[in-house]
Amino acid sequence: MISVKEALQTVLNSNQDFGVEEIPFIKSVSRILKEKITADRDFPPFNRVSMDGIAIDYIAFKNGQRGFKVEGIQAAGSEQITLQNPENCIEVMTGAVLPYNANTVIRYEDVTIVDGIATINIDTINDAQNVHSKGKDGKTGDILIEENTLISAAEIGVLATVGKGTVKVARQPKIMIVSTGDELVGVDETPLEHQIRRSNVFTLVSLLERLNISSETAHITDDKPILKSKIETYLQEYDVLLFSGAVSKGKYDFLPEVFDELGVEKLFHKVAQRPGKPFWFGENRNCKVFAFPGNPISTFVNCLAYFYPWYYKSVGVKVEEETAILNVDVSFKPNLTYFLQVKLENNNGQIIATPINGNGSGDLASLVKTDAFIQLPNDKTEFKKGAVFPIIRYR
Amino acid sequence: MISVKEALQTVLNSNQDFGVEEIPFIKSVSRILKEKITADRDFPPFNRVSMDGIAIDYIAFKNGQRGFKVEGIQAAGSEQITLQNPENCIEVMTGAVLPYNANTVIRYEDVTIVDGIATINIDTINDAQNVHSKGKDGKTGDILIEENTLISAAEIGVLATVGKGTVKVARQPKIMIVSTGDELVGVDETPLEHQIRRSNVFTLVSLLERLNISSETAHITDDKPILKSKIETYLQEYDVLLFSGAVSKGKYDFLPEVFDELGVEKLFHKVAQRPGKPFWFGENRNCKVFAFPGNPISTFVNCLAYFYPWYYKSVGVKVEEETAILNVDVSFKPNLTYFLQVKLENNNGQIIATPINGNGSGDLASLVKTDAFIQLPNDKTEFKKGAVFPIIRYR
Repeated sequence: MISVKEALQTVLNSNQDFGVEEIPFIKSVSRILKEKITADRDFPPFNRVSMDGIAIDYIAFKNGQRGFKVEGIQAAGSEQITLQNPENCIEVMTGAVLPYNANTVIRYEDVTIVDGIATINIDTINDAQNVHSKGKDGKTGDILIEENTLISAAEIGVLATVGKGTVKVARQPKIMIVSTGDELVGVDETPLEHQIRRSNVFTLVSLLERLNISSETAHITDDKPILKSKIETYLQEYDVLLFSGAVSKGKYDFLPEVFDELGVEKLFHKVAQRPGKPFWFGENRNCKVFAFPGNPISTFVNCLAYFYPWYYKSVGVKVEEETAILNVDVSFKPNLTYFLQVKLENNNGQIIATPINGNGSGDLASLVKTDAFIQLPNDKTEFKKGAVFPIIRYR
Repeated sequence: MISVKEALQTVLNSNQDFGVEEIPFIKSVSRILKEKITADRDFPPFNRVSMDGIAIDYIAFKNGQRGFKVEGIQAAGSEQITLQNPENCIEVMTGAVLPYNANTVIRYEDVTIVDGIATINIDTINDAQNVHSKGKDGKTGDILIEENTLISAAEIGVLATVGKGTVKVARQPKIMIVSTGDELVGVDETPLEHQIRRSNVFTLVSLLERLNISSETAHITDDKPILKSKIETYLQEYDVLLFSGAVSKGKYDFLPEVFDELGVEKLFHKVAQRPGKPFWFGENRNCKVFAFPGNPISTFVNCLAYFYPWYYKSVGVKVEEETAILNVDVSFKPNLTYFLQVKLENNNGQIIATPINGNGSGDLASLVKTDAFIQLPNDKTEFKKGAVFPIIRYR
């Protein structure tokens, strides 16, 4: 049995590049940018008026002039006009080009306009005020967004501004999620006494959707020849297979031997952790196989603790570790890394983690009451209130 | 000009219930649950074996017996069988029903099976161990998920388990996003010297997508009769209109008078904040109107600071305030609430906010470098390193 650290390193080492595809920029939120985005022109592309008001030549004001004849109007979206007489002014609108020969804008609030004469009502103005000068935010060719950025609404605005109607992003792996277990029936079925409904595959679908990965699902009965034949096909057709169940010691836990017979190399089976210990991970040339234990919390935490980091590494994104402060003393004797469910609270800039006791790895409903897992290391048994540990947030 | 606090209260007071719709549960992530989810049976629904191994009657072990003849196998998904002889055992699999007359499970790791006789190799076992007893996690009728919960992957698993193939969620408002400004051209066009590409509408589309709200977009030229005619139609057809631009003091900032002429009641115009001051908010019987200033950062921050809370209030979700610790001294003299862009870092369980200086409200590219706005109140001018303030996160 290997440690969580070794297991994670093994998973990360098997990261895989799934290439690049070009998609409409407006569909690219939550995808990973695979090109540098540079400024196609200066930003702003012209000396841009940043207040509605009048534009003048500052020299005239400095020389004591306060009344300015209005020569014309410079609207946003109009070609640049020229201030013909340096002792006159032009009315200018936010977003407009600063008129030629003008250099300073006084906002309407500080001006009175009567009979075509604008009078400035304040005594102090600064040269070039209320002008957002050409190239101040960036020069043509400047990098505005680095490659490997996770795209959010902020990036969408920049992509639009530089005219990237389509954008190169990391291609997503093609994923099949498979549940096993003869006790499982469909969501719309009424289970018999000894049966329960399938839930893990849907949880996994939702966890992948958070990464903007769409996936397919299947259920296979606990019949070894059927398992083997279906999995053989999936190994050809998908980049990643996620399983839930059939990896423990049970008489019908056929997956490890089926993987072996199909030539999937086992990289590890069983990790020193609770919950989620019987996790099996392997690969063949075409496909990565994450076979999670079938208990709901085990599947959930292993997807977050192993599949997510594998995905981020594969697409080239660095994700910062998040930590939280334990709110009570916790004692945990087994020599296992403990993924403990916690409710998070933001208190004065601190993230406080309060454990909520579920009833073990089968208690799916307890996930509704918590926000994250706090990861308590296996080299200690007592964890004190106030100590800081990594967390894996799922909402 | 009203304060940010008053403006927010006004916006929240105009919250609106858009009713309920029933959708497939697997599509319900990020939607707001509008029914209580109760257990349709006990959880677990039977005394559930939680380890692969053998099931015995504890009394026999207590009486000193260590060897147990294997009577049969209880697989997961099979009907409950009966332990016929209390001095025998049954092999049981994780997820199976505990056989009738058995009460305790010993895992395979602690047992040797030779010639049909299972010998227990440990000296201490507990009555009822490795059995997840019927109803331990919840009883039929227990509330598993409260109404008004924001649905995540955790809730999806529970919905599947209780057989909610469809689920009642808050209906989303129907939203039109309108940009104005004759300086704007499309993303796929090459702007002339005095033009720029549209970006705010796409940023808003993406910010709404984060709430799982789909929206439509339009652009209207700065022509008052056209504006008036189009907006009149939109007011009939949509629940919410979001505007970007044309609300300030410019000669072509027609929106406030158009709203007035169309009978949209102004609830406020201008808020004591930077950026985003010229924000106009109003409503008529059918429609809420959020008219944001056209500068990119102004539109962005106002959507987060006003539209988001309005939406959450409307659909019935409580969102906890998040705070962060300022990493440097900040001085800000104007008597305005300052929404300052910050980069966030998690350091030992603390959220540290470091301001990144953009070049004012036109500098869209600066949003790429930051994660949140920290909200500095208007009743102070000096903000010290180490002080805690609310933040609005956007990634």
